[in-house]
Amino acid sequence: MGKKIILDCDPGHDDAVAILLALGNPAIDLLGVTTVGGNQSLDKVTYNARAVLEKAHAVDVPVHMGCGRPLIREPEAAATIHGQSGLDGVELPVPSRPLDEGHAVNWIIDTIMANPPQTITLVPTGPLTNIALAARLEPRIVERVKEVVLMGGGYHVGNWSAVAEFNVKVDPEAAHIVFNESWPLTMVGLDLTHQALCTPAVQRRMEALGTDLASFVSGLMDFFRASYRENQDFVDPPVHDPCTVAYLIDPTVITTRRCPVDVEIHGDLTLGMTVADFRGAEPTPEECHTQVAVHLDVERFWDLVIDAIRALG
Amino acid sequence: MGKKIILDCDPGHDDAVAILLALGNPAIDLLGVTTVGGNQSLDKVTYNARAVLEKAHAVDVPVHMGCGRPLIREPEAAATIHGQSGLDGVELPVPSRPLDEGHAVNWIIDTIMANPPQTITLVPTGPLTNIALAARLEPRIVERVKEVVLMGGGYHVGNWSAVAEFNVKVDPEAAHIVFNESWPLTMVGLDLTHQALCTPAVQRRMEALGTDLASFVSGLMDFFRASYRENQDFVDPPVHDPCTVAYLIDPTVITTRRCPVDVEIHGDLTLGMTVADFRGAEPTPEECHTQVAVHLDVERFWDLVIDAIRALG
Amino acid sequence: MGKKIILDCDPGHDDAVAILLALGNPAIDLLGVTTVGGNQSLDKVTYNARAVLEKAHAVDVPVHMGCGRPLIREPEAAATIHGQSGLDGVELPVPSRPLDEGHAVNWIIDTIMANPPQTITLVPTGPLTNIALAARLEPRIVERVKEVVLMGGGYHVGNWSAVAEFNVKVDPEAAHIVFNESWPLTMVGLDLTHQALCTPAVQRRMEALGTDLASFVSGLMDFFRASYRENQDFVDPPVHDPCTVAYLIDPTVITTRRCPVDVEIHGDLTLGMTVADFRGAEPTPEECHTQVAVHLDVERFWDLVIDAIRALG
Amino acid sequence: MGKKIILDCDPGHDDAVAILLALGNPAIDLLGVTTVGGNQSLDKVTYNARAVLEKAHAVDVPVHMGCGRPLIREPEAAATIHGQSGLDGVELPVPSRPLDEGHAVNWIIDTIMANPPQTITLVPTGPLTNIALAARLEPRIVERVKEVVLMGGGYHVGNWSAVAEFNVKVDPEAAHIVFNESWPLTMVGLDLTHQALCTPAVQRRMEALGTDLASFVSGLMDFFRASYRENQDFVDPPVHDPCTVAYLIDPTVITTRRCPVDVEIHGDLTLGMTVADFRGAEPTPEECHTQVAVHLDVERFWDLVIDAIRALG
Repeated sequence: MGKKIILDCDPGHDDAVAILLALGNPAIDLLGVTTVGGNQSLDKVTYNARAVLEKAHAVDVPVHMGCGRPLIREPEAAATIHGQSGLDGVELPVPSRPLDEGHAVNWIIDTIMANPPQTITLVPTGPLTNIALAARLEPRIVERVKEVVLMGGGYHVGNWSAVAEFNVKVDPEAAHIVFNESWPLTMVGLDLTHQALCTPAVQRRMEALGTDLASFVSGLMDFFRASYRENQDFVDPPVHDPCTVAYLIDPTVITTRRCPVDVEIHGDLTLGMTVADFRGAEPTPEECHTQVAVHLDVERFWDLVIDAIRALG
Repeated sequence: MGKKIILDCDPGHDDAVAILLALGNPAIDLLGVTTVGGNQSLDKVTYNARAVLEKAHAVDVPVHMGCGRPLIREPEAAATIHGQSGLDGVELPVPSRPLDEGHAVNWIIDTIMANPPQTITLVPTGPLTNIALAARLEPRIVERVKEVVLMGGGYHVGNWSAVAEFNVKVDPEAAHIVFNESWPLTMVGLDLTHQALCTPAVQRRMEALGTDLASFVSGLMDFFRASYRENQDFVDPPVHDPCTVAYLIDPTVITTRRCPVDVEIHGDLTLGMTVADFRGAEPTPEECHTQVAVHLDVERFWDLVIDAIRALG
Repeated sequence: MGKKIILDCDPGHDDAVAILLALGNPAIDLLGVTTVGGNQSLDKVTYNARAVLEKAHAVDVPVHMGCGRPLIREPEAAATIHGQSGLDGVELPVPSRPLDEGHAVNWIIDTIMANPPQTITLVPTGPLTNIALAARLEPRIVERVKEVVLMGGGYHVGNWSAVAEFNVKVDPEAAHIVFNESWPLTMVGLDLTHQALCTPAVQRRMEALGTDLASFVSGLMDFFRASYRENQDFVDPPVHDPCTVAYLIDPTVITTRRCPVDVEIHGDLTLGMTVADFRGAEPTPEECHTQVAVHLDVERFWDLVIDAIRALG
Repeated sequence: MGKKIILDCDPGHDDAVAILLALGNPAIDLLGVTTVGGNQSLDKVTYNARAVLEKAHAVDVPVHMGCGRPLIREPEAAATIHGQSGLDGVELPVPSRPLDEGHAVNWIIDTIMANPPQTITLVPTGPLTNIALAARLEPRIVERVKEVVLMGGGYHVGNWSAVAEFNVKVDPEAAHIVFNESWPLTMVGLDLTHQALCTPAVQRRMEALGTDLASFVSGLMDFFRASYRENQDFVDPPVHDPCTVAYLIDPTVITTRRCPVDVEIHGDLTLGMTVADFRGAEPTPEECHTQVAVHLDVERFWDLVIDAIRALG
């Protein structure tokens, strides 16, 4: 039996790869996908999540729709990166499974409370609105989850401002809630995910699989590369979100460093910055519930991704 | 049939009077009471709400427990005003009706969505955490409620800082959400409620009713007066929360002025201030969804309160 | 011998009247005029100050040019109120006295330090940049001045935002410095100055003087009225700045209330608000160095203004 | 003829080394030292500056006292690092040259305006209060100075908070002014200066000089090492301030990177952070007036310091 995870996401090209990695690796048991407005509108990313599951023939995985806008700030999408659909560049299958009933926040709470303590891992790869609301609506989930491994933030790297990352910046108050709850939290931020570049060599390995799914992922990467070249001065696109799942499959793929992390919600230049305090000696897990991802074993990461695509047939 | 209201409160001496006024006046149909941490901890105010309903023999009114802490800020109670129990100064009956199941936020959402549009009025008299979460969890309630009439804020008066009122200041982000949604919103703030002073003359009228309930309310007022004398430089205590219900019973009891109101969530000196913009000509309801309570017909207000206590026997 | 004052201003229609009132009343000894960028650019307001002195034949009064921009924020002028010249609506005489050498800030410091303690009153009627810099450059002036009587702010009224006044809002950090120094400070804010309306009746009294200067002031008022009608929903224009001088001539013209006042420099909606704390009993001058102007004796105020214009011939 | 510099400092152990490096290297012409409250009170650091000059027999170098407190914030000293005197650990000579008259800010302005354009370099190694006031009092200095090379800030390293450095954090508004003026500005921040560690090996080289001055500097380093071990988890102390002077002596000692830098003045966690934007391609000097110091040639740096101590005899 794999690790039970709930993937809270806003697909999104890299979210799609995260879904596939979670589905295609036996170490992970994907209990469900929940969606949140972020890379695109809630309706679009929810459709995209269902379509990606359909593409992978994973019709047993429920999808619950969550929040469509940040707690306080006005909504802001990342259309420059993910296109008008949120998953531009490929043809999406029509989902055969209807959207599941029940709000994502309530489903997250109910799932955590219905499972034994310390068995559910939350994997947010979009804005943290759903997770923050769940923690406020049912505070007992904080002690009950196993851990939170999220894509977001960056201790020395920003993409939506000089020092802030998209997921955290678009709903900084939600991130502030999530980072300040006492659950074990691993921040897989831009410092790490900018190492997960999908080079042409990586893409050739995907395409060599020769499957329809591999060609689907490669199509996503083509669009993603073009977006990142045009808007973010990258040569190859960083495939952020599956890094979280890779870490859960095999923690040795990512080196982490333990340190306090908090979210700035009042600054002008620093709004949504994940402020990591590296001063002094590294604290113990008892002293500090947060850690940041520092180094990626790039080769083994892509091995995991490609193996998963292969396993999904 | 009276106006259907949901009273979202944190009893609290003046919340207790608001409950009694809602129960004792036929113009109001109190669908349920929801609770929120504020004047005291969530457990205490929830118990107090149930006890007040018990005292008024209103065992048909459900009570749903809501959020125990603000969205972002650390919790802060008003023990200097309401005592250690949140309702110090009287003996509370033991509630015979068990606490109802279901989180206040979900019950608020379900009740609004199950009733016809424009029939439910929300009456928050504590921090706005529950209402804010409900609006984020189910955005359709915003168009579906009839209106929001809340006790909180103040355009020229503060009590928890020079310019901020307790309910708004302890959860300013929740208030920011509630004031910025497009529902019709009436702010019954300190400018108004500081006119609702429970003088000795008023209290003598209560006591003249000769009922157990009247004596209960008078006991509450004794404690409330002592608190306000000691902590807030008042001679007689302002009985804030029932002003909202009085307005719903008879809008002519309160004069209002329409103007934009927003909540400061970033200031140092002004955190939690409800910023009303009185410049220029008064806007129309179409132009502006918020109004503030300006003047109280003090005599008719107390008539309503005393009539309700009498009616409850 | 009159009270020795330094008028730090940005003429400006009402600043011009303040200059004339200071020149035309024997209770005031105007040591000099210093200028600060505000209503218009520094060059323009400096020229205007010199021209107004010329108009009043006060060529013995030195004018020192000060700061042209706020401490931190980008400059912002009030062209909608004072026109492109800062003193639109009249013809200005060419100043015969050359601009005096030496920066306003240094001249303010030198003048205060060269005079006996407690003899100089600072009368700022523009942004507080010069005064703030003087206090930082030579902290000893704070104990040495007699008092600061400034036009700016408002405890319940705003004009440059819902709750902030122009002079304070355009350089809130400078105002923060000035309000937080320990000198006796009287804030003559919008709450007071919006009582100083130049009605047609007032203007007719001016014109009845029949002098060139009276007609000059009346011309200023014509333009000022039109500006306020068009931009601020006023019928008659509030003539802010001379209220400070009137208070110094005769303190009984203005009722004040003592209370702590501080300036918000971090809020979004409240940036530049002068936050007055009216809670509790009124403090003594020993407990609290700030007071706010509350009520104007309108008739006596205009008597003072008109008497001064008459006296200047 | 060396580069003409004004050293604006708050000695401070590393400021003392900066003074000596400036005095002892022929590439630098130290026009004067100005002082600012920072590491210790203004009186103490001014005395220290004079004493260090006396120790180096540099009685021809004027010292002008500047501002004793930050623009807005309350003063905060670094007594944990520099001790009660600001220069604990050594015996200071009594200065023979009296303190020069004239405020530092006015002397900085006058010196810049009296020298040909583009000839004076400002070298601030303390809080930026004096420099900010000079720029506001006489804006023409901004175009007239050659450049500003300052010790302060850090793009990825903090010491007075997780992400802010002492000099910038204690007067962030002053730093905001200085970083936002258009002069060429090099930030020598903690990222760089934490490379300038005074190891025991370095100290042995100093001591081998066998002079009284060398032994004085070594004594300073002993105290500095102990402070940094106790308070900042360092083994050897980073000798921040002379890095600025070393860069001016020989720019190849420090590698820089051009990027926009601004100062956060509103954040809670990030107050006083120097926010560098490294996204995208490196801008040209025409596009961007700021650069940050990235890499120190440690060996050549210490060669310069030791050579200077030797040269001073």
